[in-house]
Amino acid sequence: MSDMIYRVNMTTLQSTIEPVPEAWMGLGGRGLTSTIVASEVDPECHPLGPNNKLVFAPGLLSGTSAANSGRNSCGAKSPLTGGIKESNVGGTSAGIMAKLGVKALIIEGLPKDDSTFYHLHITKDKVEFFQVPELVGKNNYEVLDYMLEKYNKKVAVMSIGTPGEMRMNLANISVKDPGGKLRSHGRGGLGAVMGSKKIKCITIDAEKYKEVTIADPEKFKEASKVFTKALQENPISGEGLPAFGTNVLVNILNEAGGLPTRNFREGTWEHAEKISGETMAENIKARGGKTTHGCHAGCVIQCSQVYNDKEGNFLTSGFEYETIWAFGSNMGIEDLDQIAKIDALMDDLGVDSIETGVTFGLAVEAGILAYGDGVRAYELIANDIANGTPLGRILGSGTHVLGKIYGLVRVPTVKGQAMPAYEPRAVKGQGITYATSTMGADHTAGYAVATNILNSGGYVDPLKKDGQVELSRNLQIASAAVDSTGMCIFVAFPALDDPKCLPALIDMINARFGIALTGDDVTNLGKNILKIEREFNLKAGLTSADDRLPEFMKYEALPPHNVVWDFTNEEIDAFWDF
Amino acid sequence: MSDMIYRVNMTTLQSTIEPVPEAWMGLGGRGLTSTIVASEVDPECHPLGPNNKLVFAPGLLSGTSAANSGRNSCGAKSPLTGGIKESNVGGTSAGIMAKLGVKALIIEGLPKDDSTFYHLHITKDKVEFFQVPELVGKNNYEVLDYMLEKYNKKVAVMSIGTPGEMRMNLANISVKDPGGKLRSHGRGGLGAVMGSKKIKCITIDAEKYKEVTIADPEKFKEASKVFTKALQENPISGEGLPAFGTNVLVNILNEAGGLPTRNFREGTWEHAEKISGETMAENIKARGGKTTHGCHAGCVIQCSQVYNDKEGNFLTSGFEYETIWAFGSNMGIEDLDQIAKIDALMDDLGVDSIETGVTFGLAVEAGILAYGDGVRAYELIANDIANGTPLGRILGSGTHVLGKIYGLVRVPTVKGQAMPAYEPRAVKGQGITYATSTMGADHTAGYAVATNILNSGGYVDPLKKDGQVELSRNLQIASAAVDSTGMCIFVAFPALDDPKCLPALIDMINARFGIALTGDDVTNLGKNILKIEREFNLKAGLTSADDRLPEFMKYEALPPHNVVWDFTNEEIDAFWDF
Repeated sequence: MSDMIYRVNMTTLQSTIEPVPEAWMGLGGRGLTSTIVASEVDPECHPLGPNNKLVFAPGLLSGTSAANSGRNSCGAKSPLTGGIKESNVGGTSAGIMAKLGVKALIIEGLPKDDSTFYHLHITKDKVEFFQVPELVGKNNYEVLDYMLEKYNKKVAVMSIGTPGEMRMNLANISVKDPGGKLRSHGRGGLGAVMGSKKIKCITIDAEKYKEVTIADPEKFKEASKVFTKALQENPISGEGLPAFGTNVLVNILNEAGGLPTRNFREGTWEHAEKISGETMAENIKARGGKTTHGCHAGCVIQCSQVYNDKEGNFLTSGFEYETIWAFGSNMGIEDLDQIAKIDALMDDLGVDSIETGVTFGLAVEAGILAYGDGVRAYELIANDIANGTPLGRILGSGTHVLGKIYGLVRVPTVKGQAMPAYEPRAVKGQGITYATSTMGADHTAGYAVATNILNSGGYVDPLKKDGQVELSRNLQIASAAVDSTGMCIFVAFPALDDPKCLPALIDMINARFGIALTGDDVTNLGKNILKIEREFNLKAGLTSADDRLPEFMKYEALPPHNVVWDFTNEEIDAFWDF
Repeated sequence: MSDMIYRVNMTTLQSTIEPVPEAWMGLGGRGLTSTIVASEVDPECHPLGPNNKLVFAPGLLSGTSAANSGRNSCGAKSPLTGGIKESNVGGTSAGIMAKLGVKALIIEGLPKDDSTFYHLHITKDKVEFFQVPELVGKNNYEVLDYMLEKYNKKVAVMSIGTPGEMRMNLANISVKDPGGKLRSHGRGGLGAVMGSKKIKCITIDAEKYKEVTIADPEKFKEASKVFTKALQENPISGEGLPAFGTNVLVNILNEAGGLPTRNFREGTWEHAEKISGETMAENIKARGGKTTHGCHAGCVIQCSQVYNDKEGNFLTSGFEYETIWAFGSNMGIEDLDQIAKIDALMDDLGVDSIETGVTFGLAVEAGILAYGDGVRAYELIANDIANGTPLGRILGSGTHVLGKIYGLVRVPTVKGQAMPAYEPRAVKGQGITYATSTMGADHTAGYAVATNILNSGGYVDPLKKDGQVELSRNLQIASAAVDSTGMCIFVAFPALDDPKCLPALIDMINARFGIALTGDDVTNLGKNILKIEREFNLKAGLTSADDRLPEFMKYEALPPHNVVWDFTNEEIDAFWDF
């Protein structure tokens, strides 16, 4: 049977299962969520009001045996940026949705009675609605346990914690991974949109699904082999990431002078070694954790890990560079175990670790806590954010709003979204991505770090302006396309360096659907996605003036290279010339 | 001697006194502040950063004997709206600046050492800088006492309280009135801009000034007589306002179904009578206050008053409709005396009473306090806002940010600024002004209430769309011009109804400067000001999508008329066709 569109109306508490419109046929993941949001959501609507929609769509290759194809996209108008949002995630939801034949899940409206929360259960034939007052005020792991008890261990679970219930900008949507831990649709406050619709949890039946149909199984198998080999043989995706996780980047960025430190005051941190990937790997080995672990079935990179405490007890998994940086050099916590505790807590509550950590870095400047005080940071999350005290509400509203509340000027956000772990003054290609991405400051939207720092796809000097706009543009176009396939962003490394990788990826898509996409088609797909998103943002009221880094980066020189953000507005705006 | 431009640099702590550039010669008040801000401030700058400027300029007729000409304009990029801001005030500063020959005061930069606050004293020949650590943490009346002690009783004083020090969006700039009480540059968070520049207080010497020169004294005198007569003979400016103050509007708007009630849920309030102008006037008479009082020298309307408590002790003055409504029907306080106490407290702290009251109305929906709890509202202002507790910071950041912090949808703001006391669904001309004003939701920018409700300047049915865009456009153009003269907005009533009024106003300007402006010139001045401001806003990143009322007003029908906001985007955007 064909894939279908599952449409849920929270006002009427009814659902429909509809055929896929012609125009959406060749789309998946980000390409599909952004197309649906752009065509069905009024760009001027309130993100938490009745006219926003929350859309989930697995990637084009999700559900197949293709390596690293298990990403699910979630889209909506973002309460954080005021623009369109796509945030994708590993875990089990993409594969299960795809195998069940759910091309996209579109959630509309707000319940008339907003006194409780709902659980939606999606099966092949219908959507069931349950009121779950017993889960209100609970966080993700408790919700997960409840659902694994109610269904079976394979059921896909997407849920929000109390920050999502309270519609905080920090709130993400958490997704069960194969090991029963959590991954996140992290960015843009999508958990607040789910909370506004009074949905505590969505489960997707994993019992009655079929395998996805492959139009040309032989061709698929062959292409898949080439693609997997490219991933495994690349020094970054095949060696660096498995050995040290994404946290391999701490030392690399620190050496490059591009590790944001003390709320983006410096580019190096004297204690970087203490939180580095190398230190993390040593701890894991010494304490009986796991250095490699996949966030979704079919991952051959295995950049996740299991991180235990000194006594060998589980502390956290999916312990990412971004999180470690945000609470490490950015707000000064030197104790990796303390950051791990915060990481596990954030998983349970369901908050974006980048937005949260950057907010805490700025909170130091607001006088809310002291630099490096990890115990206080933990308490503020566990007590204040989780319970929505006034201070918790302040922190829960994210970096940009915190800056407004305290009248601060050094606020590291673009389009209201906190900057990730790369100093844009010292990694200028990444700065162009932060500035121009339709998503707000986002590192995965066009990972210029690859070519600025990691010598992947050539080399563009990170401290100079030359070539950065073109680099970011090409990467953003490619990423928009890759985000539509269900592939994880780290396929970018072999894709940039191994000429066999991208053709193999395209061959898999062609073999899956019995079509004949060319490389140009894929590039055009990427361009179209960016243009659709940009168009939505312009209608929503964003302009070129939102394609800017914070002003302080223009006049405050960043040590050690003493560089400022020196692009003119015209140079940045040329990004959109395609 | 000619008028001069006084320019203060807070980075170098130096000042210059410069001749007025040719292009600024014929400008005053709003026309001048907006021209200066537009030509000297980068629209993309951070409003609280080093590149914003704070500009003061008295009106063209300020300092003369013209009735009601004592308004001073203050301009900057607003931290509340992100766009250009002009907010004008009565009190003594306009007259004294004009007589001293200060065409405009431009304050630039931020101090390198931000550990204390400064007091600036402006004399004919120089600007003196004093560090005033002894005034840090003090509020307006204490600052005022200090300055009246240091100088003489006539000195002009402009100051901020602790909310301004803390750069809260609610913060206004307070100005001494002739009776030693306070008036405010109320809207747009200009107090936060002054606080960012670390200026606690500005005083202007009132000893060594001369009278302003009148080019044609005879002509001036004659025109002035006609103008004053028009003000005095108009039923609103000559009778209603003196008798009941601006608060005459409570009963009028309540009857019209346009009195925003319970955070803009209804258009009438069952307790309106308790807070009406009529009740207020009775209280004043019974308790030995004053029903009439001028906020600046030369006022012939006298809509201010002195309001005493039951024991006859002074409670507040300048007790305005907007304030009474905001805490009255909007957040439910039925006790006029309690509102008066809050009003006096807000004067002392220096917060915009509209923004504050609307924030408190929304705070009821956020669960921060109960509807009608005036005692708690007082405490939250006196304790939390004044001291910047987390809850005080939340409230101090204004309605729009409060909505973001609590994920609320029913947020009555435009361009981030809280709506004043006229329900736009039921007074649709005023809704067009809220939507399109360059200032954000602002009632004085184009007071369509006059023609929608008060039958001044004809009648346009408030519940219908017909004619509202044109009405608001004409009023906004006229208001921009009037805001440049130093005239109070209430000259609008005779100006709309008495054909002799506007020509007399123009004659006074011509006689003052020895020029020959026509009515068309004045209309063109108004148009130009709006265009300059709009252009700044567009460059700052605002768009037509910001010329919108909150979405909930489109789908939530307002009792008693059960009207929604039903203008299309195209109809609203046609406002700018001139």
